[in-house]
Amino acid sequence: MKKSEFSFIGDIAKMCASLPHNDFEPIGDDCTVIEIGGEEVLVATTDMLVEDVHFLRWASSAEEVGEKSLMVNLSDVAAMGATPVATLLSIALPAAAQGEWAEGFMRGYYDASARYGVALVGGDTTASTDKITINVVAIGRAHKQNIKRRSRAKVGDAICVTGKLGASSKGLVDIMFGDLNTPAAKIHRRAQARIEEGKWLGKQCEVHAMMDISDGIASDIKHIMELSKVGARIELKCIPTDYDIRYATTGGEDYELLFTVAGDKVESLIERFNEATGCEMTKIGEIVEGNNVEWLENGVPTEIELKGFTHF
Amino acid sequence: MKKSEFSFIGDIAKMCASLPHNDFEPIGDDCTVIEIGGEEVLVATTDMLVEDVHFLRWASSAEEVGEKSLMVNLSDVAAMGATPVATLLSIALPAAAQGEWAEGFMRGYYDASARYGVALVGGDTTASTDKITINVVAIGRAHKQNIKRRSRAKVGDAICVTGKLGASSKGLVDIMFGDLNTPAAKIHRRAQARIEEGKWLGKQCEVHAMMDISDGIASDIKHIMELSKVGARIELKCIPTDYDIRYATTGGEDYELLFTVAGDKVESLIERFNEATGCEMTKIGEIVEGNNVEWLENGVPTEIELKGFTHF
Repeated sequence: MKKSEFSFIGDIAKMCASLPHNDFEPIGDDCTVIEIGGEEVLVATTDMLVEDVHFLRWASSAEEVGEKSLMVNLSDVAAMGATPVATLLSIALPAAAQGEWAEGFMRGYYDASARYGVALVGGDTTASTDKITINVVAIGRAHKQNIKRRSRAKVGDAICVTGKLGASSKGLVDIMFGDLNTPAAKIHRRAQARIEEGKWLGKQCEVHAMMDISDGIASDIKHIMELSKVGARIELKCIPTDYDIRYATTGGEDYELLFTVAGDKVESLIERFNEATGCEMTKIGEIVEGNNVEWLENGVPTEIELKGFTHF
Repeated sequence: MKKSEFSFIGDIAKMCASLPHNDFEPIGDDCTVIEIGGEEVLVATTDMLVEDVHFLRWASSAEEVGEKSLMVNLSDVAAMGATPVATLLSIALPAAAQGEWAEGFMRGYYDASARYGVALVGGDTTASTDKITINVVAIGRAHKQNIKRRSRAKVGDAICVTGKLGASSKGLVDIMFGDLNTPAAKIHRRAQARIEEGKWLGKQCEVHAMMDISDGIASDIKHIMELSKVGARIELKCIPTDYDIRYATTGGEDYELLFTVAGDKVESLIERFNEATGCEMTKIGEIVEGNNVEWLENGVPTEIELKGFTHF
């Protein structure tokens, strides 16, 4: 399923490259960048959440789905180094979800919007015959020179991540087995976007490429490689995780940041980042020439086969 | 169903009014207006289309659904007096629609985007378990003084519409009875937004309030009345239509423009509008004091009960 999703968005991007650009950038980054004629730019992103594909009604509360719908979009804005300012929300609700569930959803969406100071400026609510579908558009602002793109990784850069990886997908497995309250399950149900961390990293010129981790680094690093025309070498032992390495590399929905840093600046950045944000960042590898990911285990190439995350 | 949809978007707007505004306008118009710090503003709108609520897969080709998804959003941009420049598209597809249907959809979306010079700048494609759901966000640009709002109608204004009303809903009924190729059914299947007309009307200062007609004038005029704190008097015999007056007043999806014009300027505007755009505009009533719609038939108040359009 994931495969066909990816190829379809690729087909769309290719087809639409021949449309007029109207000063917008083509599809490819976490957000599109909108020139508004000054030192500032706007960024915009859209994400759709479908019941039984991105969330299970029995496993997440309505409030949690509301919060998550916002967070996955704010995470894309953060990954550009921008500040989220507004969202537009569309929601299709079957009759059974129009009362209590809808109210819970809005409470979760509202509370998270208030926490991050984001306005709700447009919306569409409609009926659906069966499943809940949610679409959120997030709009951010940034100084032009702070915008980070997937295409700017350079050979010799250190590959870094924020926080720890793998908890969200481990939590999803816990939930599938009926354990809704393990530490990992709680992290899965309440994804938090790295807004302040993204803004701070946006201001550092030694940070070259950046994106958020939604499908696992094994899959997501390829987007940076493809757009930057580089390869990557990643040391499994360096990946910060409390869980099995498969969760940490191919598990999705961590919403941590994946970014590359000028090789000689990474040590000092790690310290300054932690001081400024209270969050850890970890170097997990280097950008190299070529177009492959080489996975190392204690410095030795390993044949481990790592596929990207498939939403159930 | 419609009732609960409307009250839910109302609840959302009310709840979110207490969020920070970040220089955005609150929900209420066809689009939100985004200040970008000069003479120009951006506008943005979002619309969700759900299979079996907004379209039937057996009754519309994939190309037609693609075109319609774009058009309903461009219509909202046109209704602000703005020029559409870019869209973001999210689409959830069940397995059975991922091949041929998806390609047809994109052809329709692409062709219409090319025709109106609109870029596609962001997207999300995902699987769904059953139904197709589409969400489009349209972004437009306009000079600040050309933006038209629902809240600006004044007592004494003429109430006007572009084109003819009722064909789309009559066409939907034809389709439900199996007649997919009547003139009205063709209009229903290929909604066209009044882009050039909206832009032209945006430049005329005697045009006060404007919106597009998506649920029928009986329902839509109430949005202008509520936000402008005025009443309306409409003469049924003046409503331009080739069909039963119920289609023309309560039928949805005409995507014509509904607007109010300074009473003493309407005659000359009708002429200039037709010369400039090749499209007809018709005066159908006046804005009056109060908060009711008074329906007249040959100048005599009528008791006709007119409800807004309910998507099947």
